[in-house]
Amino acid sequence: MQYQAPVDDMMFLVKDVFSLTERLGDIADFADFDEDLYAAILEEAGKFATGVLQPINRSGDEEGCQYNDGVVTTPKGFKEAYQAYVEGGWQSITADPNYGGQGLPKALHVLIEEMFYSANTSFCLYGSLTGGATQLLQAHADEATKQKYLPNLISGQWSGSMCLTEAHAGSDLGLLKTKAEPNDDGSYSLEGSKIFITGGEHDMAENIIHLVLARLPDAPAGPKGISLFLVPKFMVNDDGSLGERNGIECGSIEHKMGIKASSTCVMNMDDAKGWLIGPPHQGLRCMFTMMNLERLSIGIQGIGLGEMAFQQADAYARDRLQGRANDGEAPAALIKHGDVQRMLNTMESFNKAGRALGVWLGSYLDETFHSKDQSKVKTADIMSAWLTPIAKAYFTDAGYETCTIGQQVFGGHGYVREWGMEQHVRDCRIAQIYEGTNGIQALDLIGRKLIGSKGEYLKVFLSEVNSDLVTMPDSAHKNQVSELLTELEQLSETIISRSASNSEIPQLVACDYLHYVALVTYSYLWLKMEVAAQGKLDQQSAFFFKRILTRTLGLKASIESEL
Amino acid sequence: MQYQAPVDDMMFLVKDVFSLTERLGDIADFADFDEDLYAAILEEAGKFATGVLQPINRSGDEEGCQYNDGVVTTPKGFKEAYQAYVEGGWQSITADPNYGGQGLPKALHVLIEEMFYSANTSFCLYGSLTGGATQLLQAHADEATKQKYLPNLISGQWSGSMCLTEAHAGSDLGLLKTKAEPNDDGSYSLEGSKIFITGGEHDMAENIIHLVLARLPDAPAGPKGISLFLVPKFMVNDDGSLGERNGIECGSIEHKMGIKASSTCVMNMDDAKGWLIGPPHQGLRCMFTMMNLERLSIGIQGIGLGEMAFQQADAYARDRLQGRANDGEAPAALIKHGDVQRMLNTMESFNKAGRALGVWLGSYLDETFHSKDQSKVKTADIMSAWLTPIAKAYFTDAGYETCTIGQQVFGGHGYVREWGMEQHVRDCRIAQIYEGTNGIQALDLIGRKLIGSKGEYLKVFLSEVNSDLVTMPDSAHKNQVSELLTELEQLSETIISRSASNSEIPQLVACDYLHYVALVTYSYLWLKMEVAAQGKLDQQSAFFFKRILTRTLGLKASIESEL
Repeated sequence: MQYQAPVDDMMFLVKDVFSLTERLGDIADFADFDEDLYAAILEEAGKFATGVLQPINRSGDEEGCQYNDGVVTTPKGFKEAYQAYVEGGWQSITADPNYGGQGLPKALHVLIEEMFYSANTSFCLYGSLTGGATQLLQAHADEATKQKYLPNLISGQWSGSMCLTEAHAGSDLGLLKTKAEPNDDGSYSLEGSKIFITGGEHDMAENIIHLVLARLPDAPAGPKGISLFLVPKFMVNDDGSLGERNGIECGSIEHKMGIKASSTCVMNMDDAKGWLIGPPHQGLRCMFTMMNLERLSIGIQGIGLGEMAFQQADAYARDRLQGRANDGEAPAALIKHGDVQRMLNTMESFNKAGRALGVWLGSYLDETFHSKDQSKVKTADIMSAWLTPIAKAYFTDAGYETCTIGQQVFGGHGYVREWGMEQHVRDCRIAQIYEGTNGIQALDLIGRKLIGSKGEYLKVFLSEVNSDLVTMPDSAHKNQVSELLTELEQLSETIISRSASNSEIPQLVACDYLHYVALVTYSYLWLKMEVAAQGKLDQQSAFFFKRILTRTLGLKASIESEL
Repeated sequence: MQYQAPVDDMMFLVKDVFSLTERLGDIADFADFDEDLYAAILEEAGKFATGVLQPINRSGDEEGCQYNDGVVTTPKGFKEAYQAYVEGGWQSITADPNYGGQGLPKALHVLIEEMFYSANTSFCLYGSLTGGATQLLQAHADEATKQKYLPNLISGQWSGSMCLTEAHAGSDLGLLKTKAEPNDDGSYSLEGSKIFITGGEHDMAENIIHLVLARLPDAPAGPKGISLFLVPKFMVNDDGSLGERNGIECGSIEHKMGIKASSTCVMNMDDAKGWLIGPPHQGLRCMFTMMNLERLSIGIQGIGLGEMAFQQADAYARDRLQGRANDGEAPAALIKHGDVQRMLNTMESFNKAGRALGVWLGSYLDETFHSKDQSKVKTADIMSAWLTPIAKAYFTDAGYETCTIGQQVFGGHGYVREWGMEQHVRDCRIAQIYEGTNGIQALDLIGRKLIGSKGEYLKVFLSEVNSDLVTMPDSAHKNQVSELLTELEQLSETIISRSASNSEIPQLVACDYLHYVALVTYSYLWLKMEVAAQGKLDQQSAFFFKRILTRTLGLKASIESEL
């Protein structure tokens, strides 16, 4: 089934729900953009997703990446698609115009990313990493480094990778052992081995720019002794041409449950030449610039796959005749059965709220990076920090549930490979694991963000939501959201105070708390969409409020049982 | 990691929780068996699972079944393992001793099945279908047919298959089109094509006995026009020797998400000779004898895989050092982190309660098939009917969640194939789909069992549980269970009465209702285990009550929103 880019639903968010041009209206960098442009770009992105990316999604899964003596070959058609991706300018959407980027808002880019993830998740990951590397260098590299590397990363002619994990250092990066010794010429020589490196080696770009975490000789132990290095696959001469091969090589690739067309590499460094990015021992902080964007991107993977699964399940449910409907029709389309409606409505409940949260979070990231209003930047920074773990973990948990439900709608046909539904489940599963497991996200939310800020981040979140709520007409749903926000505040205060005397609490309730906060946030977003849609989304919104939001009852009770 | 057969946990259920020999004490067929025998059989089953089945589990997944011109080849080692399975008598556990069976209780057999599913789900399916075919023929075939087919099915020398689904008839078997024309010799000639036939063709048994649903020429339309036929792969001569090849052939096999070593076949019948089993047009009723046992068996698949996933995740969490524990130890074993404890405890909550429900349901099946006390048989029959859809759907939904959590404990290593965790998720996923999707199970529970009996089945369930509760010492958990049972009764009555005026309700709330009933049932079983364990299970039971059972709050509210 061909993917249908949900441009109308997306423009509904851009225009009616978030009034993006108005919302970002005082940001000079976006002054030249308007809604017509956004709509045109989304249309084009949809065509690219449907015409170029989707056709090689299943064949890519069947064929997978091949490894042979350090060389990684991507599946048939990937090279050509990547060339078209570069030529279409899809890598450069949000990048700095000073280095060739288009400088468009992240709030738009999340929608483009969703389409690409829907159509071909494996393909999308290569560019996602390159985008993160770009953002990192824009934020932390010196001007000469930017001049040298950014234009080709932004165009996509070169790709990027994040080299963090080692065999014994996954969630706990403080344990990593890769060493960087200073050379006389200001560069460093790196030794060590990294695992699970997405796009660490492949045949689609001329060069790969690795961003590698390693320890300097005088580094303190643990996470505060980690520095960040730029390590190119091929050296880059001063004139921009490619020089000799650097000492970083792919030792093997993983055989995985899914995302089989995305290369997941062991990267071995033997006298690999690298350059320090940012201050010594501050690598983890710098890397977080990239990681936060990657976390949102991986969240979007959950929504993209959830949307694709929904479209296929919805079409199948309209087409497949089976059983007697309540009105007596037999055989009736699956969609006429209440239990199938429940499944499809559940999928939409997650997809649409998640997409809205993506745009909302994207707009805060745009303010963080582009606003000149320091108070706005401060708020936006806190909101981004608060919402990022929620987006990463809940989009992907709900995405996995959504893909699984979509597969269920197909019955036995969902389990055989030819219908493609089982691939979505396999491709989605990794999103709950990489870029910080969803457990790590939950600990980030409750530990660093809630307790670490003594509730300050939550207050900012509540203030942002409440100041929007007062502009909305009164309704039963609005009352429900208000009550939930009060409940969230009280529950969070109890967590903070009880955790002070019992430090085991945050770990025990972290995941339930993240799910609880996410559902409360979704209730606000469903209300916001319902209001903006002026009646057109009432039924879907009602479904969310009565059938999905009710999960908060169990989550709250589960959390309270540990307090 | 080697599977550790949980014989002690199983014998705890057999002896301390359900006092099986006492419970089945008035059944003459089981008079010769005692707990020592049960323990010895479980020990041997554990050795077989570990020594013979587990070693070919991953290689079976990697290699899969191969199809070539009607011939299906199972992966390396399967033929030899099947031979050992037959020689060990593992096919004949519950079968009728008059035809070579061992006549052991189903309540024991569910535990053996669990071990085999843990060790090698694909392998286990072949025998599971043979067991269902055996049960069906024992119940519905005439004596000559039994003499001819049962001994070789019971030994496992021949295997069985269930041929129900057609391309346009999955959940809705009433749509099936396969035709059976009477021949002059009392046999029938079958024409048609079946899909998704587990074990429809393979190379491990000398003959395959297919039980096929088809329509007689004078059959009424819909489900009341379906008859059941026995169609052997090879004709069986009167002296028991094999005759010529029958006109039933495998046209292809499916390429699936998982259970890759289990052949899933398209079976084409062209003048295939078959014999009517049971009365004309009553095939669906007869088939349900087999389907109910298969449904329990497939439920057990969820528990078996959940147990295997738990064992591996638990071992990994004890071995893998990552992050700082609450007591300051760093790096500390994963299991010292509260969020990982939550994951492991969740897995155990589902596995142990599910296993207990399996034994409980097994004991009712034993009474149904073996008791001479008609009032006991009546109760047991109702309890089996009530609990079967719960076991099938909830064991597998919880099993999928459990396998997914187990994979999550492994982080990135859970996603790569070599650790084996992702195979459990893929192998478990089908259990929510086949043998009647879990949506169909939920409709069976709420439609046929709850509303169809006007609440009678539920009353029997409540009476069985309450009469056991009064024997238990008072406790907070006991009060909680009692309150939940009252809540369940009230909620169910409301569903019955509201459904009378709004026939859409059952479909809308079916799945939430099944999950709700399952959790209430699990609370009773956790209480029962807690009491029997005399303090040893208090912590685990408490975890279930405070962290898992709380899900009923959301489910109840979700159901009530539609009433």
